[in-house]
Amino acid sequence: MINSSVCGVVQEWLKGDPPGKLYGALFGIRGVLEKNMLDLSRQPPHIIEGLRRTPGVALGSCRYKLEREEDFARLLDAFKKHEIRYFFFIGGNDSMDTADKINRFADRESYEMRVIGIPKTIDNDLPETDHTPGYGSAAKFLAATVRETGLDLKGLITSNRIVVLEAMGRNAGWLTAAAALAKREECEAPHLIYLPEVPFDRERFLEEVAEVYREYRFAYVVASEGIRYADSGYVFKGRGRDAFGHARLGGLADTLKGIIEEELHINVRAISLGTLQRSAAHFASRTDADEAYMAGTAAVKAAREGKTDVMITLIRDSSAAGYRCTTGTVDLSAVANVEKKVPAAWISPSGNYVEDAFLDYARPLIAGEVSPAVKEGLPDFVHLEGFDLPELRRRLDRDAVSVVK
Amino acid sequence: MINSSVCGVVQEWLKGDPPGKLYGALFGIRGVLEKNMLDLSRQPPHIIEGLRRTPGVALGSCRYKLEREEDFARLLDAFKKHEIRYFFFIGGNDSMDTADKINRFADRESYEMRVIGIPKTIDNDLPETDHTPGYGSAAKFLAATVRETGLDLKGLITSNRIVVLEAMGRNAGWLTAAAALAKREECEAPHLIYLPEVPFDRERFLEEVAEVYREYRFAYVVASEGIRYADSGYVFKGRGRDAFGHARLGGLADTLKGIIEEELHINVRAISLGTLQRSAAHFASRTDADEAYMAGTAAVKAAREGKTDVMITLIRDSSAAGYRCTTGTVDLSAVANVEKKVPAAWISPSGNYVEDAFLDYARPLIAGEVSPAVKEGLPDFVHLEGFDLPELRRRLDRDAVSVVK
Repeated sequence: MINSSVCGVVQEWLKGDPPGKLYGALFGIRGVLEKNMLDLSRQPPHIIEGLRRTPGVALGSCRYKLEREEDFARLLDAFKKHEIRYFFFIGGNDSMDTADKINRFADRESYEMRVIGIPKTIDNDLPETDHTPGYGSAAKFLAATVRETGLDLKGLITSNRIVVLEAMGRNAGWLTAAAALAKREECEAPHLIYLPEVPFDRERFLEEVAEVYREYRFAYVVASEGIRYADSGYVFKGRGRDAFGHARLGGLADTLKGIIEEELHINVRAISLGTLQRSAAHFASRTDADEAYMAGTAAVKAAREGKTDVMITLIRDSSAAGYRCTTGTVDLSAVANVEKKVPAAWISPSGNYVEDAFLDYARPLIAGEVSPAVKEGLPDFVHLEGFDLPELRRRLDRDAVSVVK
Repeated sequence: MINSSVCGVVQEWLKGDPPGKLYGALFGIRGVLEKNMLDLSRQPPHIIEGLRRTPGVALGSCRYKLEREEDFARLLDAFKKHEIRYFFFIGGNDSMDTADKINRFADRESYEMRVIGIPKTIDNDLPETDHTPGYGSAAKFLAATVRETGLDLKGLITSNRIVVLEAMGRNAGWLTAAAALAKREECEAPHLIYLPEVPFDRERFLEEVAEVYREYRFAYVVASEGIRYADSGYVFKGRGRDAFGHARLGGLADTLKGIIEEELHINVRAISLGTLQRSAAHFASRTDADEAYMAGTAAVKAAREGKTDVMITLIRDSSAAGYRCTTGTVDLSAVANVEKKVPAAWISPSGNYVEDAFLDYARPLIAGEVSPAVKEGLPDFVHLEGFDLPELRRRLDRDAVSVVK
């Protein structure tokens, strides 16, 4: 949904009189540092509109931790050179931290600039906003996957009696919890949901799986890649850490498959959707797409009203009949590096499912579908004009073989 | 797509004057053996119609190898008791073998019955038919997944530089090969495709991945779960065997991830879609759905014309401008237990990609979309009336904990 927000920013920006230039930084903050930028105000309107149905990051993205003083100096240099006075930064916790740092640096250097964060993370773990753009679509796709593969499992008496589906989520179980949206009848998938908010207990897990299995003769388990034992050790420990120092996860489904097959002697099918969770544009949430766009337009409006050092928030209007959502702002410092977890009251007392309050929260976020543009039977995407993404990537990234950290 | 064929059988059957009863066997051949059957001619029309958009197997399915003489005797007993004179059996190689055996047994016992096989397998490995219902939708979903996650990979400079996606397919690489439909430009995913038709060479694989990586700084690899070394050993060896004696696979993606990370020191994201490959009704092929339905109607017509011991085939009309498909029949004995592999001429000489001839073959099969019925933001399915699937399943399947074979 990051591209929907970019579309919102551009289209709102172009309403300015005159709008002025609007640079898109190529490959995230590195685009500013290395002065690789594209004037988005000159893109053809149909390409900007097409961003709404294009997954991934049309401008490119990176993982780069702004720390060194010289990086800030280079940023300031780029800002001055291009007379950049508004800075819109889209992303999750790490990105909001980066935006906050940039704002503080500009302030210290008495460089007048308005910095606005636009939330986007499928993890839904940013505080101060009801939810984040990106979450609704990921939740919708994950729940659809559980519904479809759950139906497949239920109808087939075979040797694979248990499915373990691994969902993204390091410390917050929002996406994992969304699997519960799939269930409409008691016997349907999912039966058990394991969130990183609840310490994982191997023995209790095996008992719980065995109990469901005794009841239905099959079981559907959804677990977050980030579940940990009480001693804080990850159930699946990947190799190394990413640029922000977070442990690299993924591979949990096979770990739980191994535990179940070894101890319960029941065959397990492991499913790991990986990055499809954040890129399945072919079944995206209309609500989410519209809100991502709205967050982009709200960012431009906030900046033009003179706001700075804020992140756009989504506000749920509880007084409205049905679901309604508006935008607000919150100080970046209040969200930078703060992770919002699933509240304990929304997790079942057993620790292996979610309460109705969570379902009431999440259901409106997956409502509606975005019709994907299709060409030759497959989703069709737009590419920004004048941006040879593979070529720039090659140039930015000269090490032929990087080393696993 | 098995339910689309059931829909075709029922709707064509009901055109009979009078149509007579049409039993659906619950949980496959076990439904006949254990006399659990449902009169499909009495289902409400909207439920039969709704089968077209319901994944999984609405009647339930099983893996059961007909071997024992007493099983055949029980089948004959059920046929006689219910005066069953037409027998439609939907499935892949194993199912066609079962149908053939039943036909031969009935023949030997001088029980007059017409046995018609209806092909359905996402593996597309049945001979004598241009392709099989189920394949087009699985191919479409797999290719869409590669397109979407490929775009995600390309746009993000992060520590995960390589994606390995595992596709279903034990001995035939049809589904794996379909990943190639995703690529429209040279740099796009997938870059390498490994089929079970080509012996896997670990060293050559590492060289090929490294070469793509040197070129693009990222690489997208698709591999069949059934790839083997030259000595016939599976690259990933799962535990045990299924009811038909086939090795249980799945888990290959993590195996290749391990090989790459260990030798090339590049981080890999493994994706295993598991049963979603055969159940992703939310992005199914219209062509496939229509042909599955057509195969069902053709089966009823063939039976009423007096044919028996045949499977319905799909025939591509090459003389037509554009793609056109009709049906025919072939002797069951010609298809039972015969696996059709991807022809060598359609595999690139390097053994790590497919030729244009394959793309020309596969492209029409993924054309068009089926609009999924959606309720509360998620795919909505029908359930057959009078069939408490979970309850019957529980009854059929009393062992609380089965043993991993």
